[in-house]
Amino acid sequence: MANEERLIRMRQAMEAERLDALVLRLPENVLLLSGFWPMIGACTLVFPLQGPVICVNPDCYEAEASSSLWDAQSIYYGHGVLGAPDRATAVRNILAGIAKDKGWRRIGYEGSFEVAAPSWNSAEFLVPAAPSHELLRAAFDGSELVDVSALLQAQRRRKTGYEIAKLRTASEISAIGLRTFERIVAVGISGVELAAAVERDIMVDGTGYNGATRVRAFAQVAAGPEESAFGYRPNEISTVRRLADGDVALLELGVVVDGYWADRTRVRVAGKPTSEQLGIFDLVRQAQQAAIAAIRPGVTGGQVDEAARRVIRDAAYGEFFPHITGHGLGFRYHESAPILAPGAAERLQEGELTSVEPGIYKKPAGGFRIEDDVLVTADGSEVLGPFPKTLA
Amino acid sequence: MANEERLIRMRQAMEAERLDALVLRLPENVLLLSGFWPMIGACTLVFPLQGPVICVNPDCYEAEASSSLWDAQSIYYGHGVLGAPDRATAVRNILAGIAKDKGWRRIGYEGSFEVAAPSWNSAEFLVPAAPSHELLRAAFDGSELVDVSALLQAQRRRKTGYEIAKLRTASEISAIGLRTFERIVAVGISGVELAAAVERDIMVDGTGYNGATRVRAFAQVAAGPEESAFGYRPNEISTVRRLADGDVALLELGVVVDGYWADRTRVRVAGKPTSEQLGIFDLVRQAQQAAIAAIRPGVTGGQVDEAARRVIRDAAYGEFFPHITGHGLGFRYHESAPILAPGAAERLQEGELTSVEPGIYKKPAGGFRIEDDVLVTADGSEVLGPFPKTLA
Repeated sequence: MANEERLIRMRQAMEAERLDALVLRLPENVLLLSGFWPMIGACTLVFPLQGPVICVNPDCYEAEASSSLWDAQSIYYGHGVLGAPDRATAVRNILAGIAKDKGWRRIGYEGSFEVAAPSWNSAEFLVPAAPSHELLRAAFDGSELVDVSALLQAQRRRKTGYEIAKLRTASEISAIGLRTFERIVAVGISGVELAAAVERDIMVDGTGYNGATRVRAFAQVAAGPEESAFGYRPNEISTVRRLADGDVALLELGVVVDGYWADRTRVRVAGKPTSEQLGIFDLVRQAQQAAIAAIRPGVTGGQVDEAARRVIRDAAYGEFFPHITGHGLGFRYHESAPILAPGAAERLQEGELTSVEPGIYKKPAGGFRIEDDVLVTADGSEVLGPFPKTLA
Repeated sequence: MANEERLIRMRQAMEAERLDALVLRLPENVLLLSGFWPMIGACTLVFPLQGPVICVNPDCYEAEASSSLWDAQSIYYGHGVLGAPDRATAVRNILAGIAKDKGWRRIGYEGSFEVAAPSWNSAEFLVPAAPSHELLRAAFDGSELVDVSALLQAQRRRKTGYEIAKLRTASEISAIGLRTFERIVAVGISGVELAAAVERDIMVDGTGYNGATRVRAFAQVAAGPEESAFGYRPNEISTVRRLADGDVALLELGVVVDGYWADRTRVRVAGKPTSEQLGIFDLVRQAQQAAIAAIRPGVTGGQVDEAARRVIRDAAYGEFFPHITGHGLGFRYHESAPILAPGAAERLQEGELTSVEPGIYKKPAGGFRIEDDVLVTADGSEVLGPFPKTLA
């Protein structure tokens, strides 16, 4: 089991909180503590302070669970076929059986976990709501249920070596899509065509890379100044509008590889860029480089943000950079920490992973953003899956 | 506003339950009652028994909201940029302002809604959990909060004319992918390549079809007997394994078009099918046709299931058809009702939409399933987005 450090850290946190066990449902948290990225949200992980980890899973996914669980017992229940038991009843009885005679007093659950990554194939998401909470209360009758959402977020912030290797693979696979994008941006292609080609190549060429089995990309391409430069927003809609000469194409790219995420952005101009476009692009590239150079353990998120923002402000483009410089990621496309933002006072620690993504949005030039995922190392930083930054 | 029937039905149900208003967060329920499919889960819809519908939404999505909301007031809050307010505080204050002096006694919320469609671009899903419930309690202090999850599911079961038109478009777009699949299945292509090509063509050719703006497909291709015939399960993993002569390729396809879903399956053989494969395929096709022919208002889900199952059982393949014949869908890839299963006693009603998807899974022939989405009409049924069924 290659991620022993994660289990040690988690059990230390549990001891500090006097937690006897965790019972987790969200796929991203099951992955964190078991190595298994559930196929759908119907998996429950029991992670006790002492004794074996137990994964309760639909039996039709036994092959995937048994091949990826680090060191856990598995209990399966029938699912999806005639004669399968009612899932809630089956899971409740299994959990009650696990807890029997254990004397667990405090059990952690995901009571406040409000932001969650999708299930791998984006079919329905199984959200733990009132019925799940009642199930936990019934299964662990006599124990106190403790909301450990904040504890889980804190754990996820600082990555272990095992997790860093997985995230490096995800970023390297994301670079496949950046390469496709760079190759095919041209006058006449649409945002939808660009997005679809990037997603296709990542799935086809990423599956199998370093052993990756479940690979999916979500690309969004804003084409031209109207789509890209109305001010930043978290999600663009790719359209059938075709690139004209001089139009920017801004690619926002989320990639998930066996549960580990990458978040990248590149921008290209179709045809010949104007001198203003070249100037803005160079500013954004310099700002990103300044932020990356500032990253090391002990600096605050505010200092890193300022390193990028100063470059853009000094060139009198400050008002066109309306968003933060970066955010954590890893078990999701976006995690809540760390954060690179004006005034952010928390200090970066070794093992944290953050996006670095300054941007300038100004008509008629267009929207320009460059984004990479940067690891905080012992003495500086490492860009995962490095890929060139060029405009045309 | 073209979906008046939906609002009338919902208000009738609310009157019966003495509900003064609904407050909804899940994107699929916001779509149901407003026409707007939120970009992320950060939208809240207030749907009162009397008075205007109000959509509370991040301001960066004003264009999408204003162009698709049927007849609702909009209130926007800052999001995603520097200086934006804390979302929870902003939404709580807006909701409290809406409720002020209304005298609402009972307010419905999604307290037990445990299965939910992903957000459109499959970035994080914003799950209503404890903080959201506390927000509702604070915003609607003095009102009783009522879990209306069952009421919402019941409403969604029977589609209106407006919704049927949207679902027909989604199924027609899904046929684009079936055509691609049929065209490119051949010896030497992998499941991953097939899945990626199907997804690509649906995005590229589906966007713009009948005005569709947000189109995404999730394809899974099981290739060969080992991947396809170990017994049915809800999710396959496409792999890099290449089709050999005589291998089946089983395509499971979910498609979402502006919030409305289609669910299709086709199976093809690479190269020359064996006589057993041809025979099994023909049985599955006959079983599906028998089920479709049995669908009309007043028959039970059990009767429709039996129509399909009898065909397969009479040919002595009954044990190789381990799953139900169909399930509801519409605002999700899979909805809880209606259900076509042995013994299902509920009677079909006009306006219900169900998948019809018998299958036979047997080595060495492979896994065979054919799936279409079938509408219950006044005097029978209609297959949405019809597409041929051929094996090779």
